[in-house]
Parts: sequence; structure tokens; C-alpha cells
Amino acid sequence: MSWRDNLRQVEPYVAGEQPKMKNLIKLNTNENPYDPGEKVREAIQMFDANRLRLYPNADAENLRHALARYHHLDDEQVFIGNGSDEVLALTFLTCFNGEKPILFPDITYSFYPVYCELYQIHYHKVPLCDDFTINKEDYYGDNGGVIFPNPNAPTGLLLSVDDIKDILDHNRDVVVVVDEAYIDFGGQSCLGLLKDYENLLIVKTFSKFRSLAGSRLGAAYGNKELISHLYDVKNSFNSYPIDALNQAIGEASVADSAYIEENAKKVMATRTRIMAELRELGFIIPESYANFIFISHPRVKAAYIFKELRKKGIIVRYFNADRIQNYLRVSIGTDEQMDAFMTGVKEILSR
Amino acid sequence: MSWRDNLRQVEPYVAGEQPKMKNLIKLNTNENPYDPGEKVREAIQMFDANRLRLYPNADAENLRHALARYHHLDDEQVFIGNGSDEVLALTFLTCFNGEKPILFPDITYSFYPVYCELYQIHYHKVPLCDDFTINKEDYYGDNGGVIFPNPNAPTGLLLSVDDIKDILDHNRDVVVVVDEAYIDFGGQSCLGLLKDYENLLIVKTFSKFRSLAGSRLGAAYGNKELISHLYDVKNSFNSYPIDALNQAIGEASVADSAYIEENAKKVMATRTRIMAELRELGFIIPESYANFIFISHPRVKAAYIFKELRKKGIIVRYFNADRIQNYLRVSIGTDEQMDAFMTGVKEILSR
Repeated sequence: MSWRDNLRQVEPYVAGEQPKMKNLIKLNTNENPYDPGEKVREAIQMFDANRLRLYPNADAENLRHALARYHHLDDEQVFIGNGSDEVLALTFLTCFNGEKPILFPDITYSFYPVYCELYQIHYHKVPLCDDFTINKEDYYGDNGGVIFPNPNAPTGLLLSVDDIKDILDHNRDVVVVVDEAYIDFGGQSCLGLLKDYENLLIVKTFSKFRSLAGSRLGAAYGNKELISHLYDVKNSFNSYPIDALNQAIGEASVADSAYIEENAKKVMATRTRIMAELRELGFIIPESYANFIFISHPRVKAAYIFKELRKKGIIVRYFNADRIQNYLRVSIGTDEQMDAFMTGVKEILSR
Repeated sequence: MSWRDNLRQVEPYVAGEQPKMKNLIKLNTNENPYDPGEKVREAIQMFDANRLRLYPNADAENLRHALARYHHLDDEQVFIGNGSDEVLALTFLTCFNGEKPILFPDITYSFYPVYCELYQIHYHKVPLCDDFTINKEDYYGDNGGVIFPNPNAPTGLLLSVDDIKDILDHNRDVVVVVDEAYIDFGGQSCLGLLKDYENLLIVKTFSKFRSLAGSRLGAAYGNKELISHLYDVKNSFNSYPIDALNQAIGEASVADSAYIEENAKKVMATRTRIMAELRELGFIIPESYANFIFISHPRVKAAYIFKELRKKGIIVRYFNADRIQNYLRVSIGTDEQMDAFMTGVKEILSR
């Protein structure tokens, strides 16, 4: 017997690379190209470092209140975590303890099966349709829970609130999680369904819409009882997951939401323009409601474009996975960054 | 059937209260009374808010390197987490997957049994001796792993490195975790044992010694293979647990270690003085090697002193638990805070 025998064996999630090259055009992890804003900057400048010697507020109450007000909910309907990845991990651990498999799409956020392996949760991957859309009827069966991103990643495709309502109507006895990491780039949130479905949990992040990937702030919204269960599990894991400075930064960002919403509009305008230009070059692109696009060319292989763009210092995301080997996920950067991307793509296609 | 049926049922850890009263003398959560330092302040002032739109370094590599240098270890021997609570939680999840119960003292950090309940790990509480010391032979039996704080909390008592070596010699086939949250207030770390024991894991925190409870930084030190397993589990849970700003703050703190060490000496001098004064008043106090003391009076009940101190705006920690109902844990504050505490105690005893 060895001490190694008791170690947990896992296949960890592999995040998009964070290369250290200079002058990189980084379009691979769906970061927002715009500044987090003056209010965030002020919150950092005004922060009294001496406060750091004390524990932070354990439940990030002020930030919780700010988010509740922003979304017209009660404070007790809001859960805050260390990035939406932690929120999702605690959600899997809290909500998916049945015998039956949980359901999620075969092409989706690749962290979901990793959480399942970590916590030994049974799961079943439901194939997307050939056009990558979610067929809502596929989620009507007997299951231990349902989770999907809306819009889905890496496809960018959106499910309507009515379709989500149908999925909820057919799943009253399990928790249904809608991961709205990318909803603020043109999609319609299903927050309005919370009042009618006590088994609905909606997860959001500060990383994309609020340009705060570096702050590690995520949130979940649900009915008070479900949220209180999430806090119980969180308090069995880590009493103080959100540091004091980023609680202040998060509050400043919520107070600056008008500015943030303008940035999202800029991202959407750039997305519209770039999608049109790429389609003119022959690219196939599902309709995107996210701050990224999912592109495929009938003539030139995605793996080749990926490699050649990288040589030019332009990093996009390539997934070497079933059904999507010929697609690239490209984050929407500034207009300048996307122009450089387009120039690179045109040069590669013209060879 | 209801969605509630699949929810995980837990008894969460209850942290020391963080009351919102003004002018409080807060001696209940072992925070350091001294400022985190000028280098930390500068790190915040110099931080470019625009960096927050990007994901932080996933493994906090620069901070990892700084800690490795400080402790004369290789970078690959260092694991960084979101406070030592997260480090401990991931340690339990990673290392304690055997059938046999893990061992820890009956009087110790009360989060340990909570982690076990959360992850359904069998455990056995080993009673401390009557004088609250750890009897090393009690840990020699067959088990699934061992964990104890050194110095122990809330007693403050220290186990010698030789005693820990004996425990390790009798536990070569399980992971032995030494939680050194309070080691830098006069104890001797067992980091030197790492080269001889590949199953030893040492956990430390920035919250006490480095006055950074508000930053949520913790670390574990062990052999490369064990640390790499911890990272695998961390990467199955949360890719980016440490935000960019607190990575910079942590590095600044490590660079300011000479200043931090002076603060620890001040805390220790105050501790020596206050222990002598309390003993003169009849208090029984185990020898403390931490930034808190564990005190009991033969004539006046701890619960009463706790309540009366609170009326005076002085908050200490009372555990309503077996064997320690007549003890209070008192964090060591500044000399001024401790003088106010002493005045309060004297007034209460004189009634």
C-alpha cells in the first residue's frame, strides 16, 4: 500500500492558453477587449490596504445587494462565488446528487463533464442537432438534472425564453441550470422565469460582459431556498471565497453598468461586421449571440488556419473534438484587432 | 419526487462573527493587528485596472516562485489556493479517498469534520490529553490519513518537529497534513521534513502572519507529485482561483517579509506580557505558539466573561463544545487593544 492509493484520479479541464508572447492578439478565451471602467479604477485607488488584515464579508453582502437591485431580485436570491467556474462547481456538488444521469449537450462548455468526474455524478451527453441547435424535446426525459449554457458555447447559438420554459415545464422535479455567461451580448435572459420556477438556477459571470476576468467574480440567481442550499455547501467548503478588494471592484462595476452596456453594444456591432466579412469569404458561421463566433471554412481546414494565425501572433481557440474539428472559436476583440484578424485570414485563404 | 431530493445536505462550518459595531476591539478571528505593509499598498496603487479584463495567471506562477524562493523549495513543490480553507478543502478531496477513517484531534480546527461530511470521508476524532497536548502514539494506528494544525487551534500548543517525524515514521502509506496556519508566531515549521517524507503536505496561510485575511491566499507545500495531484483536482474545480490583484499583493507581501517578521515579533512580545498578566489574575493558559491564547478562569465562567466583554465592545471567541466550555480563545491585538481587554477582564473578575 502507498499514500498514492488514496489520491483522487481526475482528468482536469484544460483552459484556453494564456501565452506570454508580446504584442499578441488574444482572441482565444472570450475576454472583453474594453476597459473595466473608471469606477473600477477608482475603487482600486480608494481601497484602504489596511482593510486587508481583516477577513472580508463572508457572503459579499454589499455586492449581493447591488446585483439584486440591478436584476430586480431579493438579496436572498443571489449567490456570489469565485468566478462562475466556482459557482458551477458548487452547483454540481449541491444540486446533482440523484441516481439518474444529468443531461447536457454533447457540444458545450467542456468543464461540465469534468465536474461530473470530480464529484462522481452520472451524466448523459445529448447530441445537438446537425446545425448545432439544441432540440428542447431531448431534455424532456427522466433525468437527475439539466444544465446548458445560453447562448451555448462554443457555438454562440441562443435558445429562446419560451423554449427554456418548455424545458422547465417538462422538468419540475430536478434542478435546471441555465449558464448565462454570454447572455449580455444580445440574448434574452431567463431571469424573468425565476418567479414561476423554483427549480431554476441561472449562473452569470463578471468575466465577459463586465471585463473582469481577472477579478474572479461569478453569481447564481434562484429561489431563496435553493440559494440558501448553495450557501450551505459553500460554507462547508470555504467561508470567505471573495476577497475584500474584488468585492469593492464588483460593486463599482455594477454601479457602472451603463458604461458596460455600451461596451457590449460595441462588441455586438463588431461581431455583426466581422461575421458579414467572413461569410463573404465563404465561412460558415452559426448565428452568434455571444462575444465570440464559431467559424468553419469549406475549403481550408480549421487546424491549418489556427496554426497559421498563431504564427502571425493571433491566437484563437481550436477544439480537437468530435463534430467540431473543422471549427474555430474566435473571440470578438476591438475593431483594430478584428481587422488584423481579417487581414491574417484573407492572407491564409489566398495561398 | 421533488427537485429538493437531489440536494446535498450539509452542516456548514460557522466562522467567527464579523460584527458591524463601530469602535469594536475584535479579538475573535485571529486577525493580525498590524498593517500588511507599504509594499502591499504600493502593489495596489500601481496595479493597472485594465489588466482585470484578462484572465489571471491560472497557477499564480510568480507568487508560487516567490514563495518557493522564500522557503528554499522548488516552484513545483508549491500549491496556491483561495485562502488556506480552499487549500484544505481541496486537500481533503484529493488525498483522503481511502476506506479507512482519517485521524484528527477531537479539539482542533472545526472545519475538518465539515470537509469530511461534505465529501463523505470517514474520520475518527482522537482525544487530546487532559492538558490538551497531542499524544503522538495515538496517530500510529491503521488509518486513511492524518491531519492536525501545528500549533493546534484553539489551544495554541505546539508539537515538536521530532514528534511530527515520529508520526510520519509510523504513517508512510497515507498522506499526513500539517496545518501550519499559526507556525510563524514562535513555532518551528516542519518544512525541513519535506525532503525525507514524500507523503507530507504542509498548509500555510497569508491571513495571520502576513496580515492578509482580506486577500484570501493560502498555500500548500509538498513533493512535486503530490502537489501536481492537487493541481489536477484544482483544475477540475476552478481554473483561475486567484485573482490578478491578489497575486500581485501576495508577491509584494513575500518581498516585504522582513517587515512582516517584525510584526510577528511584536505579537509574540504582547502575547508573553498578556499571558503573564492573566496568569497573575488566576487564569489557566496552555503555552501558546500562535497569535491567540486559550484562557480559562477557575472561578469565573468563560461564557460569562465572553458576554460581559461583548457588552464592553470587546469580542473574543467562545466555543460551546465538549471539554472547552470554560475556555475563551483571545486573539493577540495591539498593546493598546490588549490593555483595554485586560482592563475589561479585571473589572469583570472584581465583581
